Amino acid sequence: MKIEHTPNFSVVATDGSARLGELSMERHSLETPTFMPVGTRGAVRTLTSSDLKELGADIVLGNTYHLMLRPGVETIQSLGGLHGFTGWERLILTDSGGYQVFSLEPDVDDLGATFKSTYDGSLHRLTPKGAVDIQCGLGADIQMTLDVCPPLPSEKSVIETAVARTKLWAEDAREYFLLKRENERFAGAQFGIVQGGLDLSLRRISGEQIVDIGFDGYAVGGLSVGESREEMLEPMEASLGTLPIGRPRYFMGLGDPAGLVEAVNLGVDMFDCVWPTRLARHGTALTREGRINLGAARYAKSEDPIDPHFLQNPAAHWSRGYLRHLLAVGEPAAARLLTLHNLAWLFDMMQRMRQSIRNGTFQEFRREILEIWA
Amino acid sequence: MKIEHTPNFSVVATDGSARLGELSMERHSLETPTFMPVGTRGAVRTLTSSDLKELGADIVLGNTYHLMLRPGVETIQSLGGLHGFTGWERLILTDSGGYQVFSLEPDVDDLGATFKSTYDGSLHRLTPKGAVDIQCGLGADIQMTLDVCPPLPSEKSVIETAVARTKLWAEDAREYFLLKRENERFAGAQFGIVQGGLDLSLRRISGEQIVDIGFDGYAVGGLSVGESREEMLEPMEASLGTLPIGRPRYFMGLGDPAGLVEAVNLGVDMFDCVWPTRLARHGTALTREGRINLGAARYAKSEDPIDPHFLQNPAAHWSRGYLRHLLAVGEPAAARLLTLHNLAWLFDMMQRMRQSIRNGTFQEFRREILEIWA
Repeated sequence: MKIEHTPNFSVVATDGSARLGELSMERHSLETPTFMPVGTRGAVRTLTSSDLKELGADIVLGNTYHLMLRPGVETIQSLGGLHGFTGWERLILTDSGGYQVFSLEPDVDDLGATFKSTYDGSLHRLTPKGAVDIQCGLGADIQMTLDVCPPLPSEKSVIETAVARTKLWAEDAREYFLLKRENERFAGAQFGIVQGGLDLSLRRISGEQIVDIGFDGYAVGGLSVGESREEMLEPMEASLGTLPIGRPRYFMGLGDPAGLVEAVNLGVDMFDCVWPTRLARHGTALTREGRINLGAARYAKSEDPIDPHFLQNPAAHWSRGYLRHLLAVGEPAAARLLTLHNLAWLFDMMQRMRQSIRNGTFQEFRREILEIWA
Repeated sequence: MKIEHTPNFSVVATDGSARLGELSMERHSLETPTFMPVGTRGAVRTLTSSDLKELGADIVLGNTYHLMLRPGVETIQSLGGLHGFTGWERLILTDSGGYQVFSLEPDVDDLGATFKSTYDGSLHRLTPKGAVDIQCGLGADIQMTLDVCPPLPSEKSVIETAVARTKLWAEDAREYFLLKRENERFAGAQFGIVQGGLDLSLRRISGEQIVDIGFDGYAVGGLSVGESREEMLEPMEASLGTLPIGRPRYFMGLGDPAGLVEAVNLGVDMFDCVWPTRLARHGTALTREGRINLGAARYAKSEDPIDPHFLQNPAAHWSRGYLRHLLAVGEPAAARLLTLHNLAWLFDMMQRMRQSIRNGTFQEFRREILEIWA
């Protein structure tokens, strides 16, 4: 069977290993490197799909684990899939649910994982094929295979088992997905995930196994789970080294500026993280001069906008003093304004990063970011 | 001294006692009857000034008690007054702080009230002149005199003392305000407040006393504090009977549709209440068919918009099913979307009410509203 890859993806410029790419699907096209805000429960916390569109977001991540439990796939399907449900017309990538499930100490066997819902304690089972069905039900544009994501550090034997099961599950999931895509004629894409912990040779083995199966795109998983940036970069590079040039590469769970430029420097195209939005809800704003805690008393009378060097954002209309007040008295508008600001700021940073790749000045851009954020 | 009344106010149509008015100040002009959302701590909870402008709000209420304590008048003044601080360019009415202070069991004497801050227990004093200074510092377009607002029911002697002190304080406040307005050449207005509990003759006495002093507009206070609608309407009418035709009339603390049409039916022009926004935060939506609790399981798969009869609002894009989900999992976007909806809905109701006065069909409109909301 010949596989028609979707999304259409092409690398249009490079600067060293950094890539400027174009990713195009039926619903929407975008440039990479791209950052995907996380809409865990069908919304990026404090925002609506209209807000995200105004911010210029191209693709949003939905969490299969949460959505399969609340409100459930059937409800979302009956309300038009995740796109119709949330009113979001651009791209949606869903994770497989594996990452959350593995944090719940599930019973795992070669065929899947059984876990207890954090909502009501009920028992659920996630299998490679089941995860495909759920993500198809959600209507994901890009879906992820169910993988085994061990914590770090773990014994080598644990990582080896994870790599082996991730391969088995990826084979199952891919076969099932391709059959389903052919039978049901939908336009979705499926990405495979490379595991292997911090072990470089396991990273290479896992990468080769996943590439052998053949996916529409590839993710590097199992990193950015608490290890240092230094520990993270080598296994990331080892994973990326096994991946084909012509397909999109997604590094899971990373969103801080220093991490982003380092990963792009190694050739990553796609990112997701709750980092900018979670910081916002805790009163921290991203600025060209670094992060600032707007809850601090020293901002009480500040007339400056949140980031005086970045006025093209929906929250620039209000002063640090006003934001500080809203945070101090617990007004919910604060979390929303800072979420809008942090996402706008990060999207702008990604835009400047893409421009620097286009211009051949990526290393200069990288140094500037690392100087402030490393 | 000749008093130049501001705002400019004229009654442009009547239907029975219901009045269609035009209220005009330097910053903004509006039609009455009008509803003022409450921005207690410098924001209508979950919203920004941009949201309020998009909703078509004309005038917003700020709470002197909260703002004088957090962030304090000096801070707000240094950030451009309440208008500059919040980014709201249309009208602001501030209460005097009296209502909140009297709920804290203050020490009251003929000269003012001493109370403990609910934020940190510190002691503060509010006097008739002090309340003028604070509201001038906030930059209110319309400010209220400090009054004595006893709970209901209260002994007649308590109400009598309240009426007497309200008069004394109103005299002090008016004299001070007029001098200040002349010396400092600002464009603000000051409204007096009628007290008198449920006692009709005390209501008339208080009304005559306040009108004798002479204000730019008049408020009916001390009602809508827990008594039934039936108990409320007669003393409201007795108060209104003492007020001049040509000045705006503000009934404090009322926002439900049945209460609004009944008060407009007696000739009220202005309203404020946390009712629509507080309901929203608890998951209740206003619809043409009455209020509905969107947290209920029966809405889980509903594709209907919040109110199928009212689609001209910023939240009509999402289904009841989506809202129900956001409420069920505690997503903060729910409170914002329902706040937007409820305010848009109430503004629309006020618009339809004004139109009915213009058309001479107010009684028909009133019956329709009472049928559903009484």
